[in-house]
Amino acid sequence: MSGFTLEAAADFAAELADAARPIIRDYFRTGVVVDIKADDSPVTIADRSVEKALRALIEDRFPDHGIAGEEFGPKNLDAEYVWSLDPIDGTKAFITGRPTFGTLIGLLRRGEPVLGVIDCPILDERWIGGPEVATTLNGGGLMKPVHKPLDKAILTATSPDMFSAVEAPRFAALKEACGLTLFSGDCHNFGLLALGTIDLVVEASLSDYDYLAPAAVVTGAGGLLTDWTGAPVTLGSTSRIVAARDPALHAAAVAILSA
Amino acid sequence: MSGFTLEAAADFAAELADAARPIIRDYFRTGVVVDIKADDSPVTIADRSVEKALRALIEDRFPDHGIAGEEFGPKNLDAEYVWSLDPIDGTKAFITGRPTFGTLIGLLRRGEPVLGVIDCPILDERWIGGPEVATTLNGGGLMKPVHKPLDKAILTATSPDMFSAVEAPRFAALKEACGLTLFSGDCHNFGLLALGTIDLVVEASLSDYDYLAPAAVVTGAGGLLTDWTGAPVTLGSTSRIVAARDPALHAAAVAILSA
Repeated sequence: MSGFTLEAAADFAAELADAARPIIRDYFRTGVVVDIKADDSPVTIADRSVEKALRALIEDRFPDHGIAGEEFGPKNLDAEYVWSLDPIDGTKAFITGRPTFGTLIGLLRRGEPVLGVIDCPILDERWIGGPEVATTLNGGGLMKPVHKPLDKAILTATSPDMFSAVEAPRFAALKEACGLTLFSGDCHNFGLLALGTIDLVVEASLSDYDYLAPAAVVTGAGGLLTDWTGAPVTLGSTSRIVAARDPALHAAAVAILSA
Repeated sequence: MSGFTLEAAADFAAELADAARPIIRDYFRTGVVVDIKADDSPVTIADRSVEKALRALIEDRFPDHGIAGEEFGPKNLDAEYVWSLDPIDGTKAFITGRPTFGTLIGLLRRGEPVLGVIDCPILDERWIGGPEVATTLNGGGLMKPVHKPLDKAILTATSPDMFSAVEAPRFAALKEACGLTLFSGDCHNFGLLALGTIDLVVEASLSDYDYLAPAAVVTGAGGLLTDWTGAPVTLGSTSRIVAARDPALHAAAVAILSA
């Protein structure tokens, strides 16, 4: 690793999140102009400013690393290390003044998510973790895992409107089987799942920068984040995600979602 | 008013919210036991402890006032002044570790909401206002009202699952006409509407303690909170709410919801 340890990567990822926070806070609830992108999703100067700042920091410190970000083109994706960046995951929450959005910073090593940060700048909540880095929330521990059957599980999904005609009935079947379903939340849902207050997160219509950092955070909390067939995620691998801390619950959800 | 001014009421309502905060914070994300009530809604020791504390403070200071709360029986509802209490509006958010819930404290004078508090203890956000008390957020001002046509408006509703078979197509028609619809949020949506980052809030399956405090807060921000026919709200008057800061937007929404 030529001196580039996971510990050093975690410190640097925290520096990146620290750099994003003041930019986002300055734009929050200021009525920023919202542009609609080709994929119909909203973007603001806050999204673009944060990603520019993070790219500059990475290019300065690790010029040989790759970068895959939401707002600007990919760079050097064949590198051993690639950073996955979503400057504001939950732009719709951001533009409506809701604090439940976050900056996602993921690090891939040869395609595998090895570290992730979910940073919620308004809530002052930061999750960091990965397969070999026990996930923490603001440096502290998580709640003890509790096994729940599917019919007691709390399920979240960012929107009921994100599912295609093929996906909607599968999600509806899972929702019907769960104890409680809540919508909205974006990346904050993965943080709460890692913490232990949400049992299942199911999403569709995602891009890789939406789930690579969460995959590391959830794995570092002892959980699983996969596609709807149970396969692990990497750059561009899927748009459909299911996450759980409890492997049995994850398997039960995959069985319904992949039926 | 025999010394009981709106200013004194606002100070006392803030004292009530101050009393609720530490109780709620102590229980947040601690895995409290969730009981299911007869109406299928969840309740915890946090809800009950807060309402008990607020009732004791009101009974001590204003023994002749009435109280209509979510968790315990009504008291003296024929009094000139009646307090409407919802200790935790958004119990589902509370039990999933989401910070977007709040304590609702409303004051009615002869049935009319004259003062409201929306207090979000984890977010440290408190709205206070009423028809004769300009609404503030943490003591500060709101964003300037901006007129938007319906097709640019941001609509929120707590859940797509709260609408009856009669209500669902009306809500769907409004959602179709709006620019963006986001779910979840509970009372925080009314606060953001007062602030100016959300344009329309539509809810169904509510009880009066869910909307009386918000009605005062929204009115104090220059807006309207009514039932789906445009009628003002009072104790037990409706379960269907539509709120907007912009009267033209409110009228457009009422036209669709009451069709």
